[in-house]
Amino acid sequence: MSSEDPSKVDVLIIGAGPSGLMLATWMARLGIKTRIVDKRFDRINSGQADGLQSRTFEIFDSLGFGQDIWREANHMLEIRFWNPDEHRKLYRSDMIVDTVPGLSRFQQATLHQARVEEYLLTYIGKHSDLKVEYGVMPESLDIDTDNVESDGYPVSVTLRNLPSPSPESQASLDLDDSKIPNGLHRSNLTADTTDAMLQDAQATDGTHAAKIRAKYVVGCDGAHSWTRRQIGCVMEGDHSDFIWGVLDIIPITDFPDIRYRCAIHSASGSMMIIPRENKHVRLYIQVTEVDETGKPVDRFNITPSNLLDAANKILSPYKIDYKHCHWWTAYRIGQRVGSKFSAHDRVFLAGDAVHTHSPKAGQGMNISMHDTYNLGWKVASVVKGWANRSLLETYSTERQQIARELIEFDRKFSHLFSGRPAEHMMDKEGVDLKTFKQVFEKGNLFSSGCVVDYASSLIVTKPGPTKTTVGDGGIPLVGKQALAPNIPIGMRIPSHKILNQSDGRPWHLQELLPSNGQWRVIVFAGDLLDHAQSLRLSSLGIELGSPNSFLSRFRPKDNESSLSSFFELLTIHSSPRQKVDLLTLPEIFHPYSSEYGWDYDKVYVDDISYHEGHGQAYQNYGIDQRKGCVVIVRPDQYVSWIGELEDVADMNRLFESIFVSSTKLP
Amino acid sequence: MSSEDPSKVDVLIIGAGPSGLMLATWMARLGIKTRIVDKRFDRINSGQADGLQSRTFEIFDSLGFGQDIWREANHMLEIRFWNPDEHRKLYRSDMIVDTVPGLSRFQQATLHQARVEEYLLTYIGKHSDLKVEYGVMPESLDIDTDNVESDGYPVSVTLRNLPSPSPESQASLDLDDSKIPNGLHRSNLTADTTDAMLQDAQATDGTHAAKIRAKYVVGCDGAHSWTRRQIGCVMEGDHSDFIWGVLDIIPITDFPDIRYRCAIHSASGSMMIIPRENKHVRLYIQVTEVDETGKPVDRFNITPSNLLDAANKILSPYKIDYKHCHWWTAYRIGQRVGSKFSAHDRVFLAGDAVHTHSPKAGQGMNISMHDTYNLGWKVASVVKGWANRSLLETYSTERQQIARELIEFDRKFSHLFSGRPAEHMMDKEGVDLKTFKQVFEKGNLFSSGCVVDYASSLIVTKPGPTKTTVGDGGIPLVGKQALAPNIPIGMRIPSHKILNQSDGRPWHLQELLPSNGQWRVIVFAGDLLDHAQSLRLSSLGIELGSPNSFLSRFRPKDNESSLSSFFELLTIHSSPRQKVDLLTLPEIFHPYSSEYGWDYDKVYVDDISYHEGHGQAYQNYGIDQRKGCVVIVRPDQYVSWIGELEDVADMNRLFESIFVSSTKLP
Repeated sequence: MSSEDPSKVDVLIIGAGPSGLMLATWMARLGIKTRIVDKRFDRINSGQADGLQSRTFEIFDSLGFGQDIWREANHMLEIRFWNPDEHRKLYRSDMIVDTVPGLSRFQQATLHQARVEEYLLTYIGKHSDLKVEYGVMPESLDIDTDNVESDGYPVSVTLRNLPSPSPESQASLDLDDSKIPNGLHRSNLTADTTDAMLQDAQATDGTHAAKIRAKYVVGCDGAHSWTRRQIGCVMEGDHSDFIWGVLDIIPITDFPDIRYRCAIHSASGSMMIIPRENKHVRLYIQVTEVDETGKPVDRFNITPSNLLDAANKILSPYKIDYKHCHWWTAYRIGQRVGSKFSAHDRVFLAGDAVHTHSPKAGQGMNISMHDTYNLGWKVASVVKGWANRSLLETYSTERQQIARELIEFDRKFSHLFSGRPAEHMMDKEGVDLKTFKQVFEKGNLFSSGCVVDYASSLIVTKPGPTKTTVGDGGIPLVGKQALAPNIPIGMRIPSHKILNQSDGRPWHLQELLPSNGQWRVIVFAGDLLDHAQSLRLSSLGIELGSPNSFLSRFRPKDNESSLSSFFELLTIHSSPRQKVDLLTLPEIFHPYSSEYGWDYDKVYVDDISYHEGHGQAYQNYGIDQRKGCVVIVRPDQYVSWIGELEDVADMNRLFESIFVSSTKLP
Repeated sequence: MSSEDPSKVDVLIIGAGPSGLMLATWMARLGIKTRIVDKRFDRINSGQADGLQSRTFEIFDSLGFGQDIWREANHMLEIRFWNPDEHRKLYRSDMIVDTVPGLSRFQQATLHQARVEEYLLTYIGKHSDLKVEYGVMPESLDIDTDNVESDGYPVSVTLRNLPSPSPESQASLDLDDSKIPNGLHRSNLTADTTDAMLQDAQATDGTHAAKIRAKYVVGCDGAHSWTRRQIGCVMEGDHSDFIWGVLDIIPITDFPDIRYRCAIHSASGSMMIIPRENKHVRLYIQVTEVDETGKPVDRFNITPSNLLDAANKILSPYKIDYKHCHWWTAYRIGQRVGSKFSAHDRVFLAGDAVHTHSPKAGQGMNISMHDTYNLGWKVASVVKGWANRSLLETYSTERQQIARELIEFDRKFSHLFSGRPAEHMMDKEGVDLKTFKQVFEKGNLFSSGCVVDYASSLIVTKPGPTKTTVGDGGIPLVGKQALAPNIPIGMRIPSHKILNQSDGRPWHLQELLPSNGQWRVIVFAGDLLDHAQSLRLSSLGIELGSPNSFLSRFRPKDNESSLSSFFELLTIHSSPRQKVDLLTLPEIFHPYSSEYGWDYDKVYVDDISYHEGHGQAYQNYGIDQRKGCVVIVRPDQYVSWIGELEDVADMNRLFESIFVSSTKLP
């Protein structure tokens, strides 16, 4: 990719944090000509985010490194609540499970953002020669609005190489005299320095600016997003008066629950304990808004030792200390969401650039990566000329909805967390601990990331109003949810274990859905030993194999090496494994190659395994064991449509709205 | 290590196959000055071994890459038997599980030897700067027998650099005119060329020989072992007349069970199918001893196409073909074991150098690695001055026993496999298929590698004669097996899931036993909520903490960085997790560091987890839930001793026999 003219790129990514890198994974995987720039001079190596949701691990698993990062991460399994008793003495009032059991193969966990970025960079390096350009930031952005629907490069951006920071200027960022790295310069307690950096760079001799043209630009440039300002996106919402400090330490303490996630409401303030990998613990410590003399807290008074003092007051009579502190910061709680997520579906915003909130629920890094995980395959499909541009509209509608839910969740959660505990039944101003626990429990469902439910659209066929009326005269296509009640259309497909028909090896269904850009047509074939059902499957095979089916009509050009087909047919039947031979199924379900023989990795069975139990997939999905159904899953594992084995016409309609017919391709 | 005088090494390893590399993992991990040479010029990249036992994965897991290699490997879960019916027509007569369920976390699997070697090399590179010296072979070996018990370097070896092979000479190794790599030059159908190679090298200008001195030399140099001849070890046993061919192909076939392990006895001969990773399949094909004219088979007539013809005859009416063949070979079945495994416990033999057998049961690579996995920690402990030299005697006794069991197993297995199927009840010459299946089933237990049971010795305290009488006057120390009937002394400790007391995370017990050279003292503490039991644990803590205990008396010198202690104390209690606080246990069970605080990774609990069930460890091990016991596990995860919480004197006796007291160290 880098061998071609660098002044024209398909996709320019501004910002190489988790959000920008997740976007780059799609570009790398699907061979999109991309540049990714970051104003930082190097990757972060301390601080920042650390919470990883169940859903984030599922995404990582679809990229091939989910199990590795899962093993490396610290698993958070239980939340412990500490509260003042009637004598204002701290006691352990409750213990609840962190991630709701059965929701995902993975549970909430913590791992340092730098490690997460390393995994993403390794993936990108494995699939492409894309490299992050550090010390580079944009200084102008123009959209040729007359040509946003054309095939050209309607976005012009000037990129400037920043001068390397001198050691002195770096030191000046440290607001206390300790040598512990801090995140205050990125905190919302500090003014935005983006413009100043740019002006400095422009005034410095020897820096270099270059104009490039892009088909698409994505601003993943964080809470102080420069891209956001260029497209007139406004952050809506506000900051509260709550100030919190963060300390990353290896704790030396007699507090008994230091390796559990703890929510502590003491008489002296609130604190959250987040255990991490390698003996580390992150403390979120409430800082009183006014100091003892009644003056508002000056942020320059926030230092690691002051934060440690506050922590000791909250934890009393327990004590906490450290020899190793790796990072600290402070922030003012606020919840804000961008007024728009894109301009002309040519420039997009993602991550902190369009939603900011408190970090305590461990959502930020996750939702930011999910934004671009949602956007990436869509942009790639359009850049490649595979999909219609209308596909891109679904980014804003889907992710803006999630951002609003996130902000609402965080507002409730933070308020309860920062509040003073109620001292008695009639104390209306104080936070009732039962309410707090309930919000926490409900929050855990939300914060797993597994309950995201996208609204009806071009690619989500559930009943309800659809913005898009592409297709035949705007009659909305509605999937038959009742055929698989536990595979909700609009949500990511839940995972249960099934066995490969050809060798009996158990797989989690999600393991069969790597993020390679393909849509999956999952044929729950039902009972193959039932003659009538076997005929239904044969008919489906014939329909799918006809030249009029989506399989034949929509396919990548021959010279596209990144995808052999837009679709993968996976079959899961419900007959006993030992009573079925793969080769008795119609060929389209286990395609033949004159070089490699039959494909043994497309047909699975819902049966008991020798060593890993019985996934009971049909039963768990609520699918009829005899009659089955067909489920269509998007490249990001969200369920698009459900229908019967006879509903090939509906499948065709679905994909006619999305894909550019191959006959139309040049 | 390489920065010091290379003419003196602690350990010289001859041969860098799986056996030699496994030995090197211990040397790398424990910081032993080592050289490893191999007469090959590069690593193999096709053919050779592919079977991996359950136990081998457990060992890999103890090295940190078990899960990775397990995911990459092809899992073999079921064996399918094919036999002729009364009309001599091939039919599927039976299906049985491959690995006995519950035996291990891992099942039998296949992965190419080259990948296995890569994992081992990566591990070695991560822990040391040890590099394999390719194109180097020994030409002389002398043991200074007067000084084998001294602290010096009693073994002298001359190493010669071989001349790089010319492309022509490599081509001449190919015995057929196809370009498919074959293994015939390593097969027992071909004469040993080791001496010829050496003579060629000595006669070639510019090759270089260097004399080195070693404390220990280990010959991992394969079936044609040069080292074996130097120490006068003789291979005992013989070859049969059965000749088998091997084809590694990507099959194109209508045979329905090509992705299952199949044992096929057809009217036209026998064949075994071993499915592998990446669509590959290995076929073991019986070659008739005499050709159609009655002459014995000439090995030069064995070619891939002849083997394919034979496979098609056996599989008929099914057909098999290929476009990709990656390797092939042929061998004559034989079972032989070395007359001795060491000379003066200074020169050792391991792997194919001391046991050869048929490859069909997938044992070779495994048992070879297990040999050096057994030897490595012992040699390292003696080289370091930690352990008495008598520890080394246990290598020969333990592994010679296993080699004999292997050879006996293989003789029975191969005979049944190569035999003609019985045609009727009274056909005494033919192989009875019921017997065949029974041997197969019993064989699977053996071939999992998990039922190895070492005899009584210095480090295995089960009742029975002990060769070693070190300790107080030869009264043998006998562990109390009845306290944990399902943790057999002499066998590797079985694994069940337990939870970390400090954060509730589930771990398989074996995951807590990485191969780092430490002995584990596993305290099954029983019910901590029982007052009497809690007192027993306190007393044990006091005894272990006393200056007379093995913990205090035997420890590495201060300047040893590879191990902080010879022992790790792990505690597993049986009280409910939520009712116990870590800090209420005596400090010795969760040691304190002024830098890192309490150690949260030493105390575990047998309780239910939120997401991964209940391991029921006490029940599965047969340990009393209230009273517990203590289990001592060797650095290679084999059980050494079992006793009560009061039996510290016996623990001391055990380690007095093994370790050199630290006060005796220089």
